[in-house]
Amino acid sequence: MSRMLDAAAAAALLGQSDRLLLLTHRRPDGDTVGSASALCLGLRALGKQAFLASNEEITPKLAPFAAGLQASAEFVPDTIVAVDIADESLFCPSMEQYKGKVDLCIDHHPSNKNYATALYLEPAAAATGELICTLLRQMQVEISVEMWERIYLAVATDTGCFKFGNTTPYAHAIAADCIAAGVKFHPINRAFFQLKSRARMEVEKALFAGLRFSPDGRIAATAISRDFIEGIGANNDDMDNLSTLTMELEGVVCGIVLTENVSRGSFKASVRTQAPFDASRICANFGGGGHARAAGATLPGEARQVVEQMMQAAEEELKRDV
Amino acid sequence: MSRMLDAAAAAALLGQSDRLLLLTHRRPDGDTVGSASALCLGLRALGKQAFLASNEEITPKLAPFAAGLQASAEFVPDTIVAVDIADESLFCPSMEQYKGKVDLCIDHHPSNKNYATALYLEPAAAATGELICTLLRQMQVEISVEMWERIYLAVATDTGCFKFGNTTPYAHAIAADCIAAGVKFHPINRAFFQLKSRARMEVEKALFAGLRFSPDGRIAATAISRDFIEGIGANNDDMDNLSTLTMELEGVVCGIVLTENVSRGSFKASVRTQAPFDASRICANFGGGGHARAAGATLPGEARQVVEQMMQAAEEELKRDV
Repeated sequence: MSRMLDAAAAAALLGQSDRLLLLTHRRPDGDTVGSASALCLGLRALGKQAFLASNEEITPKLAPFAAGLQASAEFVPDTIVAVDIADESLFCPSMEQYKGKVDLCIDHHPSNKNYATALYLEPAAAATGELICTLLRQMQVEISVEMWERIYLAVATDTGCFKFGNTTPYAHAIAADCIAAGVKFHPINRAFFQLKSRARMEVEKALFAGLRFSPDGRIAATAISRDFIEGIGANNDDMDNLSTLTMELEGVVCGIVLTENVSRGSFKASVRTQAPFDASRICANFGGGGHARAAGATLPGEARQVVEQMMQAAEEELKRDV
Repeated sequence: MSRMLDAAAAAALLGQSDRLLLLTHRRPDGDTVGSASALCLGLRALGKQAFLASNEEITPKLAPFAAGLQASAEFVPDTIVAVDIADESLFCPSMEQYKGKVDLCIDHHPSNKNYATALYLEPAAAATGELICTLLRQMQVEISVEMWERIYLAVATDTGCFKFGNTTPYAHAIAADCIAAGVKFHPINRAFFQLKSRARMEVEKALFAGLRFSPDGRIAATAISRDFIEGIGANNDDMDNLSTLTMELEGVVCGIVLTENVSRGSFKASVRTQAPFDASRICANFGGGGHARAAGATLPGEARQVVEQMMQAAEEELKRDV
């Protein structure tokens, strides 16, 4: 179990350190990269040596925010800080060496596994970026526009540009400060919330073209073949979050997207539901699981067949409605 | 020319009035409806008689925010207030009677035509909702959650849920206050920024399926036939803002959507560009016009032909790139 710290204690711990290495999670998002890089710049502004551990999974869109902050092989830290990492299983392969050695974890995930020696956790925060802003203020860092830009990235991406239900007053207040400080937020919003690659457009076209609806329109499901994915050269980013798109359709309370695995002959199902329907119960029929609103499973079979199976399981779950 | 008022003077003018009628613009959006209804509730909280002029073009999504606030035929106002209306040409047919009779206009459009006796204009504001918040505070109204909800609607819709480049620090600060006051912002975000009708899905499918690209991928254009639109039963909402979708595609700097007119045989073109390309110059080739980033024109002809003509005009404009 971690020792639980509040913001002041976490700031004090950071203040006592001289050489800090900051870790980000695998499949990095705007919150882990924005938060860690803002903190890194803030610690440097206090005269400390601070670096990000190089993250081999960083995407081209996120890389500029971490540019020039990576530690060289010679850097010997006195303090290891995990930023926005709920669990050591989310460490990149290159960061495996730090398992069991994290001095401080800064996180907002309620599911945090308490793996670090000390933990500054704010489960009500919309993003770890909120905690970073609080810490920089606690440490009396003069927050530069480069820091504000990274805090904006963190807060905006974890709230879906202030659209999701998790958005807090503090997230908006921070965004106000970012814009007032001169952050060019619009290019960030455009890159992260608007721009679509041509491959993504093709994937969305195929998704909507192949969508099957239940007679009452409450279930929408489709399968996407690996041949199609490889044919258009879609990458992981292009295939991200497809099942949430089905939930944007009026009347749909259960959206299912099945993506064929690279080995062919089986599909990875991603299921989303609106309350009170339980996505994890639907997936449990196929040995899968997850959360009430978002769950997954793997189904062997052909496209038509797996769609049919998932739709039947979803129909069963929807009968619970009274 | 209008007498220009600041917030304090506008609040004083409202404070001197007893029976106020508030006007919203035609094709009403969240800002005009949210701003007018929040102000209406605020004026009532001060003990005044305040009503909205009934807007015959209000949509089902916006109607709940104005519910119960409409003036009856017997109401005789002493003060007419136009909210978020840049020009008398934007009055609904039912509000024609108030042309030349507006006592106060509250607006953020830089293009405001100064048609009212007095004008409280903040051209740097992201939404008229910002001005309403300032006015309610000036008048020392205790802002209720119902007022905050309508202010949120106004500010969120005019900023594209805080995504557009016009978003101000004040817009975010207001959103922070709204959420802190208990506004259920997520259902608003879902209804206005996420939910898609089945007809809208069909329109988007057709749009992307028919999209033609220039060889360099910088121009994307398509035409949608009236037969298709009528066949799927798409309404005006379903056809809204289609050309902005083309601008979400990576590499596209000029997006063109042509919609066949009801009378057939001619198309309404909607053109969007990224700087430095000028949409109004492209449209001027066909007797149309508009703004640098968004313009329109009407072209007679068949689908293939009008797409070809617009693409050629766009190619010419894109040659200006150096």
